[in-house]
Amino acid sequence: MSSNDSHAVNETRLRVRYAETDQMGVVYHSNHLIWFEVGRVEFMRQLGFSYRDMERNDQRFIAVVDVKCRYKAPVHYDEEVLVRTKLKAVRDSVIIFEYELTLAQTGALLAEGETTHIVTDANMKVSSLPQKYLEVFRAAVGK
Amino acid sequence: MSSNDSHAVNETRLRVRYAETDQMGVVYHSNHLIWFEVGRVEFMRQLGFSYRDMERNDQRFIAVVDVKCRYKAPVHYDEEVLVRTKLKAVRDSVIIFEYELTLAQTGALLAEGETTHIVTDANMKVSSLPQKYLEVFRAAVGK
Amino acid sequence: MSSNDSHAVNETRLRVRYAETDQMGVVYHSNHLIWFEVGRVEFMRQLGFSYRDMERNDQRFIAVVDVKCRYKAPVHYDEEVLVRTKLKAVRDSVIIFEYELTLAQTGALLAEGETTHIVTDANMKVSSLPQKYLEVFRAAVGK
Amino acid sequence: MSSNDSHAVNETRLRVRYAETDQMGVVYHSNHLIWFEVGRVEFMRQLGFSYRDMERNDQRFIAVVDVKCRYKAPVHYDEEVLVRTKLKAVRDSVIIFEYELTLAQTGALLAEGETTHIVTDANMKVSSLPQKYLEVFRAAVGK
Repeated sequence: MSSNDSHAVNETRLRVRYAETDQMGVVYHSNHLIWFEVGRVEFMRQLGFSYRDMERNDQRFIAVVDVKCRYKAPVHYDEEVLVRTKLKAVRDSVIIFEYELTLAQTGALLAEGETTHIVTDANMKVSSLPQKYLEVFRAAVGK
Repeated sequence: MSSNDSHAVNETRLRVRYAETDQMGVVYHSNHLIWFEVGRVEFMRQLGFSYRDMERNDQRFIAVVDVKCRYKAPVHYDEEVLVRTKLKAVRDSVIIFEYELTLAQTGALLAEGETTHIVTDANMKVSSLPQKYLEVFRAAVGK
Repeated sequence: MSSNDSHAVNETRLRVRYAETDQMGVVYHSNHLIWFEVGRVEFMRQLGFSYRDMERNDQRFIAVVDVKCRYKAPVHYDEEVLVRTKLKAVRDSVIIFEYELTLAQTGALLAEGETTHIVTDANMKVSSLPQKYLEVFRAAVGK
Repeated sequence: MSSNDSHAVNETRLRVRYAETDQMGVVYHSNHLIWFEVGRVEFMRQLGFSYRDMERNDQRFIAVVDVKCRYKAPVHYDEEVLVRTKLKAVRDSVIIFEYELTLAQTGALLAEGETTHIVTDANMKVSSLPQKYLEVFRAAVGK
């Protein structure tokens, strides 16, 4: 697979909702984590997987164990945000995603983040990614 | 049971969170529904029930089928809100709650609402309230 | 303007986020109000207006004073929801929107709702819609 | 001021809301950031300040520029969470808070986090804490 593999980065757009703003007139900072998740799900869809099916059919869950977010610029109501998601690392039971939020119109950096996940079964016990996911995830790391 | 039965109305206080405000400088209107639920759960706790246990142990769920809310005055960050919850009606599989939100400090009316619920089992099929809940709920109606 | 004016109904799609679900395994019911707002904003954009600019440039706000929602079917994670928004009524300082949420894939009805708004100035005093909005809004009623 | 100054750590309790859970049956991870803020505001109140007044009267805002959260155990609906907040560092325009979330009933650790803030004016320009806050904050660091 070449280093510019189009599967390796997902770009998803979303528009800021009024409910996501706070009285400072900008997006409240916990919403960035929800947007990271939107990116993560679309990243997986681009790889050919549905996280919904992974939960339903394979009884595997990707629980968040660590979150980091650096806020670079305020985000405003009705702006279009580009969420760029990529895989930083994958091991049997650990997955690390990286995110970049930019303003779609100008490319200005809004925030950067990283989430670490462990794979669990339906009882929240640490488990491992089914082979079919693991292979595709590994091929997508760091691209 | 007398008409001024103290079990018949629940009063719960909560403080407005920054995350609940929007860029208009007031609480975003969907949060009132979340506060109604806080009131509903405390109402049940006051009757001697835990909604958590009802779900866990009795496999009964109270799904929302109808919501009405009239907003009377804006609510601001850090204000203390009093949620008054009472039961309007109970039938085997239908429960109707009424709510009043007031500003704790002044008693000013902030919002009024009503939620209608159907009782379901874990598969979202219409079911009925277990007898132990039904009796206590019936005694608390309209008080 | 003809009665089947394409400006009169807005259809907007959104995908259910994980954060919008609750432990019953379906979308928590306050999110529908947020989706109504997404529809409302897109409805206005389709009419040629930006609600953001109305706030910024004209200092007019559309505050929610009444909300009704009837939930017809549970909505699940990752489903695509179609939000149909139309104007029910417009007066100088009052606007009533109607909404229909359906499952994009099947057309199944998920919820119906209505929101009533008053037009305010930046100090939350009742005001009226600037003429440029009022004319276009009136033309779009009930279509 | 002694090293066990009771002003130096704030402990606030909150009860998990249904709306905060997701379909995994536990609290969705972005809510922890909202709880950190609840702790932060109560910490300031304990020091004798109202963050609301700081915004209103002094036109100073505490914008989040960095968030870290490590999730140690899932949090469930209706559980009581103890938020312990303390100040890690204070400089003219930078404030760093630390948080610990534990289960009130057992003391079990649920999450640990840290938020870094810059002080801004109403136009989001970097500013500094008014002297009256700065002195009290400095006295409370690391206690």
